[in-house]
Amino acid sequence: MTDLLNAGKQALAAQPFSQLLGAALTEFSAERVEIVVPITQQIKQQNGFVHGGVISYAADNALTFAGGAALGAAVVTSEYKINYLKPAFGDKLIARATLLHAGKNQAVCRCDVFAVGAEGEETLCAAAQGTIVKLPDCPARDV
Amino acid sequence: MTDLLNAGKQALAAQPFSQLLGAALTEFSAERVEIVVPITQQIKQQNGFVHGGVISYAADNALTFAGGAALGAAVVTSEYKINYLKPAFGDKLIARATLLHAGKNQAVCRCDVFAVGAEGEETLCAAAQGTIVKLPDCPARDV
Amino acid sequence: MTDLLNAGKQALAAQPFSQLLGAALTEFSAERVEIVVPITQQIKQQNGFVHGGVISYAADNALTFAGGAALGAAVVTSEYKINYLKPAFGDKLIARATLLHAGKNQAVCRCDVFAVGAEGEETLCAAAQGTIVKLPDCPARDV
Amino acid sequence: MTDLLNAGKQALAAQPFSQLLGAALTEFSAERVEIVVPITQQIKQQNGFVHGGVISYAADNALTFAGGAALGAAVVTSEYKINYLKPAFGDKLIARATLLHAGKNQAVCRCDVFAVGAEGEETLCAAAQGTIVKLPDCPARDV
Repeated sequence: MTDLLNAGKQALAAQPFSQLLGAALTEFSAERVEIVVPITQQIKQQNGFVHGGVISYAADNALTFAGGAALGAAVVTSEYKINYLKPAFGDKLIARATLLHAGKNQAVCRCDVFAVGAEGEETLCAAAQGTIVKLPDCPARDV
Repeated sequence: MTDLLNAGKQALAAQPFSQLLGAALTEFSAERVEIVVPITQQIKQQNGFVHGGVISYAADNALTFAGGAALGAAVVTSEYKINYLKPAFGDKLIARATLLHAGKNQAVCRCDVFAVGAEGEETLCAAAQGTIVKLPDCPARDV
Repeated sequence: MTDLLNAGKQALAAQPFSQLLGAALTEFSAERVEIVVPITQQIKQQNGFVHGGVISYAADNALTFAGGAALGAAVVTSEYKINYLKPAFGDKLIARATLLHAGKNQAVCRCDVFAVGAEGEETLCAAAQGTIVKLPDCPARDV
Repeated sequence: MTDLLNAGKQALAAQPFSQLLGAALTEFSAERVEIVVPITQQIKQQNGFVHGGVISYAADNALTFAGGAALGAAVVTSEYKINYLKPAFGDKLIARATLLHAGKNQAVCRCDVFAVGAEGEETLCAAAQGTIVKLPDCPARDV
């Protein structure tokens, strides 16, 4: 395991909400970020599919890590948009994010969220794009 | 309590993920939707602020209800964008959504998410805008 | 005419593309920005409605000015999203933007674009939300 | 030239605004759409770079064609978001769009906009993602 992946795993472990969801960082490099969320009953909506809020969580977090790989540790997601494409069901969600462009203080990334079935088959469920900003130079969430 | 609000509360109660977060629908009319999420330790990120994924959940869900008030019960959020404005902390989150425009099969709504402190003071933490679509006429999540 | 409005008009006049479209800044204050674009044959698409690209131009530019009123002159739009709500036709477009939140280096704004008919009646045609960033502290378009 | 490309060129030629900008459709298939806009003085902003409104136009239009390749001729862009990444200058803009997912009535597409220099070198200037809807089944712009 690389030092970067190890540091990323610790960062995710420090987020109570990520722990609540059982999220795991499985790849963390300048090229690709991957976050996995097991699909359990508690993250579903009324139709038995994964709740959009969890899909958004996975996309948002993967975007943050992808920006962080380029900008450094102290980053937050400033904004993003997401399109839900298909209902998500199966064994787990995988959110994969990549960097599009990084400046000094902000980075723009894309993320695809897949639902993975029992046989490992992947279905693209959502697509996101957003901006990650460095703290404290360009605080999107300045108090 | 109006019939519409009552129906909405039942819809939210049927979502396991909304139950996990303790979310409550406190207003549900053609004019305004309001969803409240208590701020607990388990929905935070590493800095002690509410995790963006929970803010996104609240915005997404409020948008869906706002679209549903116009289009009917069987709707889903097709897409949305969100800008995080300030760190969210305090007692609870309130997501307030309003309808901008509704056609036959889709509606466009806006949502503001506030953090509410111990004295009831509100701070705007995030702003969202998105599209809600009717099922099954215009399935954004068609299997 | 206020000094701010005057400065804004000069900024718009310095944009060849805004001149090509005949765009005019009609309000420019910390509270509200208004840009007017006359609807001529050359800005239409194949159905006789105003081309989405022109509606986007108006929204983007109004967002930039709204952010500029808060952050200062040297700003650019970093990103935005737009929902088209209705076909735009009539005498002119009016894009009205307001500030949601400004930090030190970036501002988040919303914009509504209306089509105005011969009798002055206004129809909401598009809604946008985006981020404006200060140059050069947080260059979204750093070369 | 394929029939599809030919039909697309006629569609673009029927848009007065696209003619004003000198836009050309250079690829139009289920796999990829490419729209080229020559960089002239009249499409610039005050700093000599291409105005964001023109970059948005190119992205919006390429997204529409990419959705149209999947859904059929009668489509409109319902919504999109765009991140500006770098200032655009050089000889021409190229907007390349691809399909992410198509249902019966709507499609989600991505678009990258490049500035092309005198030697043919390409610089990624903007990235967009949006929804295209079929008319009249799901009218985003229903009158």
